[in-house]
Amino acid sequence: MSKSFDELVAKAAAVEKKKVSVAVAQDDEVLLAVKAAKEKGIADSILVGDADEIKKIADNIGMNLADYEVIDVKDKIEAAHEAVKLVHDGKADMYMKGLIDTKDFLKSVLDKEVGLRSGRPLSHVCVFEMEGVDHLLFLSDVAFVPYPTLDDKANIIRNTVEICEACGVKNPKVAPLAAVEVVNPKMPETVEADQLRQMNENGEIAGCIVDGPLSLDLATCPEAAKHKGATGRKIVGDADVLLFPNIHAGNILYKGLVHFANVKNGNLITGTAAPVILTSRSDSFEVKVNSLALGALVADSLKKNANK
Amino acid sequence: MSKSFDELVAKAAAVEKKKVSVAVAQDDEVLLAVKAAKEKGIADSILVGDADEIKKIADNIGMNLADYEVIDVKDKIEAAHEAVKLVHDGKADMYMKGLIDTKDFLKSVLDKEVGLRSGRPLSHVCVFEMEGVDHLLFLSDVAFVPYPTLDDKANIIRNTVEICEACGVKNPKVAPLAAVEVVNPKMPETVEADQLRQMNENGEIAGCIVDGPLSLDLATCPEAAKHKGATGRKIVGDADVLLFPNIHAGNILYKGLVHFANVKNGNLITGTAAPVILTSRSDSFEVKVNSLALGALVADSLKKNANK
Repeated sequence: MSKSFDELVAKAAAVEKKKVSVAVAQDDEVLLAVKAAKEKGIADSILVGDADEIKKIADNIGMNLADYEVIDVKDKIEAAHEAVKLVHDGKADMYMKGLIDTKDFLKSVLDKEVGLRSGRPLSHVCVFEMEGVDHLLFLSDVAFVPYPTLDDKANIIRNTVEICEACGVKNPKVAPLAAVEVVNPKMPETVEADQLRQMNENGEIAGCIVDGPLSLDLATCPEAAKHKGATGRKIVGDADVLLFPNIHAGNILYKGLVHFANVKNGNLITGTAAPVILTSRSDSFEVKVNSLALGALVADSLKKNANK
Repeated sequence: MSKSFDELVAKAAAVEKKKVSVAVAQDDEVLLAVKAAKEKGIADSILVGDADEIKKIADNIGMNLADYEVIDVKDKIEAAHEAVKLVHDGKADMYMKGLIDTKDFLKSVLDKEVGLRSGRPLSHVCVFEMEGVDHLLFLSDVAFVPYPTLDDKANIIRNTVEICEACGVKNPKVAPLAAVEVVNPKMPETVEADQLRQMNENGEIAGCIVDGPLSLDLATCPEAAKHKGATGRKIVGDADVLLFPNIHAGNILYKGLVHFANVKNGNLITGTAAPVILTSRSDSFEVKVNSLALGALVADSLKKNANK
């Protein structure tokens, strides 16, 4: 079980080398990240975009383009189409956003002919290494699914469990969060948390242990869980996965911890046929590299499962 | 403008000495806190509850009961009734929960004859001194109002602005939070945030500056706000008040920051005729003392406003 991004990066470097296809690659931050990913042995890249612009940035950041495949496509929509097709056709293992609007990038992911639809709903997973927690935390959904229904939540759990497994976290503990830890009919979030627990017990949600509703302290702080006398629960401050009732709760906590706690993180879009790296401009270089390491591990796990 | 709890405590000690009435005072943690409050010059206390039990605990913690008024009422409901009446009748300035269920304590607060109804809706305010933010943050509502309507949110802002003013924070900046910083008709939280901004502009919500919807980083991190190019906004990472769309979002962030960031905090119930201190057993000694200091400052501010 990996407990840090250093371990995840080392693990990603140890598996069969993966390849990332970058849509509209002429972005300095993104090129710095794929350069580091190559240097760390995480992944090689195919850079699809404006070759002149890519060359300019590469020269600036000391990136030797002889080590990379560059495909010259000036139009951004066409570049994304070309880049996602490389993953769709198995010529690359994962797909990364460059200098293109999120909306257009996602359109390419969802393209019926060359995209990465898997038949399952997409969701976003954020992985945290955080001071005060002795294992990795997997947060979902803080960025993609606004108001998940019960079914959506079940799918978010399934998607996230796959990411956990790729990171070596087996049978993860999943905490559907709420303000309280008891079911209250006036709080639908708590009712659904309990339903998810039941769906896990009857096998509808497999490969994990679901226990909810849980407040954040009962989910993540063993001390607080003991202090509050949480007996007979399956999760006692040792959750791996934090499931949020909606995007507002998830995003507000995510940003709170990124800015005010001591956190390293990486993110992926999952539920796709191959891992999708959709970091934002405000994400640091480190977050982008961490996300590439996550993507490589998930791609490796998908390949192994397909070969079973 | 106070920027730390040390300053708030010093300020509370400097104003006319206040008195707190404690309902069912036979609780070691609560007695330790009122003892510290007396020693720091924050407040004297009237201890209503089982006098024998109070004596036992006092002996244990080196508390000289000669310095306190003790009213012997064995029954918990009656003790709360007696304790809240002292505040209602002006014999004490604030009301604190001891060893009594929250539900029963709140019933006494809301009692039509001897309670502390002000005609305004109640809400909860949590004050944070947090590493990485150079001023106090006022969070609401993380504990009391589950799903505030637009009107409720307006009242929560009004209640919270009073607490800000009592802490010396004039014309506070109020950020109605969401996952995003643009109005999206599919996200009612963002629509209501914008409506609150309008209500502030047309004077319906006065004494503060409301700007929303805002994501947490735009509300609290000047760097992030600048990085994202937040131009033409009234809040650029310098919010004083964080307004949550609902209790789940608020409570999850509150617990995340308390456990994983470097935070000092204190809490009050407000919207009442006098400040109400409702800390939980899991709150530390420091949180209880900080809450008493907040209560003393708010009581002082209410007195000054009444005398105007």
